[in-house]
This record gives sequence, C-alpha cells and structure tokens, in this order.
Amino acid sequence: MSLIVQKYGGTSVGNPERIKNVARRIIATQEEGHRVVAVVSAMSGVTDSLIKLARECSPAPEEREMDVLLATGEQTTIALTAMAINAMGKKAVSLTGAQAGIVTDGVHTKAKIADLTPKQLKQYLDDGYICIVAGFQGQTKDHRITTLGRGGSDLTAIAIAAAVKADLCQIFTDVDGVYTCDPRVVPTAKKLDEISFDEMLEMASSGSKVMQSRSVEFAKKFGVVFEVRSSFNQNPGTIVKEETKSMEAVVVRGVSIEKNQAKVTVCRAPDRPGTAAQVFSAIAAAGISIDMIVQNVSHEGTTDISFTLSKDELAKVEAALAPVVKSVGAVGLESRSGIAKLSVIGVGMKSHSGVAAKMFEALSKAGINIQMISTSEIKTAVIVDEAKIAEGANVVHEAFGLGK
Amino acid sequence: MSLIVQKYGGTSVGNPERIKNVARRIIATQEEGHRVVAVVSAMSGVTDSLIKLARECSPAPEEREMDVLLATGEQTTIALTAMAINAMGKKAVSLTGAQAGIVTDGVHTKAKIADLTPKQLKQYLDDGYICIVAGFQGQTKDHRITTLGRGGSDLTAIAIAAAVKADLCQIFTDVDGVYTCDPRVVPTAKKLDEISFDEMLEMASSGSKVMQSRSVEFAKKFGVVFEVRSSFNQNPGTIVKEETKSMEAVVVRGVSIEKNQAKVTVCRAPDRPGTAAQVFSAIAAAGISIDMIVQNVSHEGTTDISFTLSKDELAKVEAALAPVVKSVGAVGLESRSGIAKLSVIGVGMKSHSGVAAKMFEALSKAGINIQMISTSEIKTAVIVDEAKIAEGANVVHEAFGLGK
Repeated sequence: MSLIVQKYGGTSVGNPERIKNVARRIIATQEEGHRVVAVVSAMSGVTDSLIKLARECSPAPEEREMDVLLATGEQTTIALTAMAINAMGKKAVSLTGAQAGIVTDGVHTKAKIADLTPKQLKQYLDDGYICIVAGFQGQTKDHRITTLGRGGSDLTAIAIAAAVKADLCQIFTDVDGVYTCDPRVVPTAKKLDEISFDEMLEMASSGSKVMQSRSVEFAKKFGVVFEVRSSFNQNPGTIVKEETKSMEAVVVRGVSIEKNQAKVTVCRAPDRPGTAAQVFSAIAAAGISIDMIVQNVSHEGTTDISFTLSKDELAKVEAALAPVVKSVGAVGLESRSGIAKLSVIGVGMKSHSGVAAKMFEALSKAGINIQMISTSEIKTAVIVDEAKIAEGANVVHEAFGLGK
Repeated sequence: MSLIVQKYGGTSVGNPERIKNVARRIIATQEEGHRVVAVVSAMSGVTDSLIKLARECSPAPEEREMDVLLATGEQTTIALTAMAINAMGKKAVSLTGAQAGIVTDGVHTKAKIADLTPKQLKQYLDDGYICIVAGFQGQTKDHRITTLGRGGSDLTAIAIAAAVKADLCQIFTDVDGVYTCDPRVVPTAKKLDEISFDEMLEMASSGSKVMQSRSVEFAKKFGVVFEVRSSFNQNPGTIVKEETKSMEAVVVRGVSIEKNQAKVTVCRAPDRPGTAAQVFSAIAAAGISIDMIVQNVSHEGTTDISFTLSKDELAKVEAALAPVVKSVGAVGLESRSGIAKLSVIGVGMKSHSGVAAKMFEALSKAGINIQMISTSEIKTAVIVDEAKIAEGANVVHEAFGLGK
C-alpha cells in the first residue's frame, strides 16, 4: 500500500464547508488504497486576526510569543479536519508539529527543521489512522514552540514525506499547477505536466510564486517528488522531480515575470578591488535583498555597478548607499523604478545554444528595449520597461512555442 | 522572596485592553517583591466560538479532537499576556499546560491531574521571569492534549501552587469574594474575610458558584491556601484555608441558595431492602445527578422516597423511573418543580446546637413552609417554594446576624 502526504493551504480549509470538502478528498485518497498524511495550514484570515490581536497587546510582540500565538491557527485546523473525517466514518487523528516529531532550531518565526522523528505518526499510520498534521510549526529540543515562516506548511509536508518515505507528496493549492507563464498575462499559457526541481526553483525565484524556494530546495535535497495541484477541482497538477533525459529535450520550460522591480546603478566607481564589496556589504548590513547584479568591463579606470531589487526597498537602499558612493569615490547613484524582469527557464538550455538569441530577437521585433541581462545555466533573464512586460512575455512565450 | 500563583478567568482577559490590565496587576505583584506565576483562561467567548466551529465540522466531535481544539483558547491568551508584560518592560514567558508539566489521565474533556513536574517553570522563575501558564489543559504521558473540564483553570492554579509550594494562590474573578449570601438576593450580605475549605465546599455544592468543588477539594487535600478576589478592583478578597479555632466561634458562615430545583417522590414504595437501590441505580444509569435524598419512617409497610435535582433533568428522570416504579411495586411517582434550596453553612455548627431551630423559626415567622430537610455536620438545608426563596434567604440571613 502506498503512502501519500498531502498539503492543504489556508484557502482550501478557509471555513467548515471547505474543511469538509478537504475531508472528502482525503477519504477519497484513502479509498483508492493509499495511506494518507495530510498537512494543513491555518484557516485563511486566522493568522491575520492573531497578528492584529498581538499588535493590540504589544507594539513589538516578542518572536517567542508570536510563535506560541500563531501555532494555535494550525492547531485549530487539525482538530476540525480530524473531526470532519471522523464524522464521515473514517479514523483520523490530529497531530501538532511537536507531536509529529518536527524538531527545529531556536530561530523563532523562521525556524529551520533540524530533525524529524515521526514515531507517533508512524504508529498511528500502522494502526490504520489518517494523520492530520499541523503545518508551519515545530518545537525546539527544549520544548519551545516555533514556526517555520513563509511557505512553512509546504515545507512541513515535504519534510514529512521525506521522513516517512512517502511515495508521493501532493501540494494542494488554489492554482491548477505550474504554468508555462502566468495565464493572467499570457492567455495561451498551459499547465506543465512535469518540471525539474531546478526549473521550479528558478521559476520561484523569478516571480512565479506557486511555492517558496526553500520547500523546493528541501525536496530536491531529499529527492521528494511532489505534485502541485488544485484543491478545488480534480485535474491532475504538475509533478516536480529530478530532471530526466526527456526533460532536457525541451529547451525552454516556461517564462517567468516579476514586476515592481527597481534598478540602481553606482555610476563610474573606481575599478579596483574592494569597491563592489563595500557596496554590497552596506546593502546586506541594511537587511535589503537584491536580485540581479551586473557589472561590465571598465572604461578609463571606472565602471558602473548595477543591481535590481523590489521597488519597495528603493528608498532604503538609496539611504544605505549614499555614504558608500562617497567613500568609494564613485560619481553618483542613479536609480529607476518602473521596470520588470522577464526570464526564460529550462534545463534543456544547458545543452542548447541560441536561447538567448531567440529571446532577444523576439523582444527586438516587438520593439522592446533590453536594459539589463543576466544568465544562469538554466535561465536567461532580462530587464525591460514594466509597461512592456506583458507584451514581452507573450512574444517570448510564442517564440519558444510554449502556447496551446 | 515569596511566590504567588494568580489565576485570571475569561472575563478578566476578555479583550486586549483587559489583558493589558491583567499584565499591570501581575507586574504590580512582582514589584511588591513577589515571584509570580499567572494562570489564564481563554478569552471570554473564544471557547464558545470554537465549539460552534466544531459543530459545523461534525455533529458529534470526538473528545480527543475537542481537547486539541479548545486548548488553543488558553494558548492564545498566554502568548498575548506574555507579550503585554514584555511590552511593559518586564520579563515574561508563556507556558502551555504540557510545558508547565501538567500530566493528566487520558479522560478527554474532563481529565484529572495525575502528576505535576514544573521543571521548566521553576527554571524560568529562577531566571527572574514571570510565568504565564495556560489553564484548563494538560497532556497525557503519551503526549495527547487533554482539558480538565469545568473550573479547570482554577484547578490548574491550585495544582501549580501546590507543586511549587507557593505562599499564596489568588483566584481573580468577576466577584469581590465569597459573600454571606448572594448580594443580588440579600442586599445586606457582606463579603467574608475568610472561610474554611469545608464551608467553601458546602457553599459551592449549595449553589454559590464562585468555584467548582473539585478545585476546593484539591486545595484542601494539598493544604493550598487561596484567595478569591476581583480582577476589576483592588479590594482584598476572601481567604480560603483550613479551619481555625477562631472560625468555629462563628456558628453560621453564610446562607446559600439554589433555584431551579425539582422534587421527585416515589410514593408508597414497599419498605424492604433493595427498593432504594433499584431507584437510585436507575437514576445513575441514566447519568442524572441528584442532590438531596430524604426517606422517612414507614407506615403500613410502605414509605415515600424523595429526592431533589435540577429541574432541567426532570423529564429525563421521570422517563428513567417509570419502569422502576412498577417493578418495585410503588403506588406512583409525584414530581414538582418551582422549588428552591436554602442552606445555612458553618463549621461552628458542629459544636453548637440550635441552628436548625433558629432557621426553622425564622422561616415559620415569615410564613414560609418547609417541604424537605437535610443536614450535614456543617450544613442545614431546606426546600421551600421558589417564589419564597428571596424572602427566606433574607430572614434567615437576618436571624443569624450575618448582615452589615
């Protein structure tokens, strides 16, 4: 009998009716002959209400106590889901993160899973129970409650799938799977049947926010095959797994877009060792995440160092860099928002040339100017005007024959 | 430095403003030079909302899962209270029942405390923290979440006070303490400065619902002195402790009333061994709690067996007894609601005669008929018409000189 780990997000368990719906899906999976572990999130809206309550009690709630508070959200869902399944005549038990054996480090609100010993969980499975596990939470060795941060429930599901050696892990969400591009932008985009871990990682970091990168990284590390699919219909989703030979035949798997970007250039900085280090140390010290970094060859002993980041962080980065520009002896700082990132992704790219050329040609034909270029082994990304991103995505998607 | 355990009920922590108020009280206690453990309940209304959610997911929620669900109520409050204290510049940590070392038996929704090893709690106290503990909940040896049933948070506070050898346990509630009678019924009723465990037990079982009997019994068993007082003002409350010589000088401590009672009589049952046993076995089998039982001497080989109970249970008890009346050969079943119980309570009664006489005389003067009488070592209780209970309470209260 195979073992399936399923994960249902906050929207899927948003109210009692939806919880009963999830209960029926879980039972259907069991009736197909599988043993089932279901990881559930807090009901949508609950976490926000708890955060509001916390703010009313303290202007700066302690992270240790935030974790104690937020963990109640998933604890509520596991109990309700187990009840719903029991009411339908099947055996189910709920398990908190701690009870499921999820041991984390002590970094409250964004803990990392340090160990997973699902002793009780395995016992319940052996006794014929469906196990409903609280996502997003764990416990330190010395019994403090912790939470795993954004995307934590996906991580719980994948970690449990690894620990119990599940045959499949299904991530139920509010989209049908991973698409060749965002269907709201590119109407011809189609759902992918499969995608490699690396492609999924690039898609995630390039703006396709189906899942957080850390969950995909964890799955890749422990070889956990998972499927992303919708909890609102019966359509098969997208299988994410280690790349295969057949996958490499497809040069480009998908097109990813990321809006709300900004570009900053440290102009005509002296081209000597240590300049870039000073710039990016100052950014890191200010706690700002940046994305692409581009530096080209120098002219007359100076060079331009450019990078992109979320436009929300622009004011912060300008403040952080003002003194650095002076101290490194650069001429000035230029910044611009209103830009977007367009990436093509595919493991097949490694062994096929001409991807960049085809992408640039498609954009050029559409009269779209490329402002920056950055590449990795399986990705080619460009920065264009935000106003042109939809048109750009469509022509590139078309150029690689990704549409329906 | 003395150690105080405090308990705040659901009304006292009903919203963020009230939680901050509780935080200030806890800090004030610490600033008076005490170490503090505060046990808190779920915010008022939260438990009811959770029960409603459960009912929407299952017509008959499993008790194991109800406990997982309801335990989130107190877990929310401990986090918020600890945050509020931290925001006021003091060190506080929250502890769930399990973290506080409360080990219970496995009887879900009404578990009994089996063991209490507050290792972590003591460590935090030694490190200078105020400890905020979730009331009402515990954990079995094999790590299942349990709840303690009605009055569970009081029990948590008293059990912790016993385990950490606290100097005092304060039960904060929405009344000022224990009164000589319900002030809404007897306007001259006054707050008692002290009362013995046994008197408190009789008061509780006679309708003065300040606390559940089980918490008082636990306190008596482990010699935990506690104070019942209001969380909404600074007035001293009522100290509950082992009786002293001086307490015995007071013949009657208070008058307790209980409305909504009903009386049932099995009429002219054969006066032979086994009749009463059959009657009360049938009642017990139907899960009905009864209060007073009275059987007087027999006439012509038959006797009347009467008992009182909550009038809500009347229909149930009539159904349960119908076959029994036949099988024991009694003439019939008479029942009546619209009655109430009036009790006078005091440890001094043991060594003073004339209490019953004085009580009956006071009632007689007021023209109030006594329908049943029952006595214990420290209590004399009578059943009267419910319409007369307020008048009866006032004249008896007056007769024993209990008023202001």
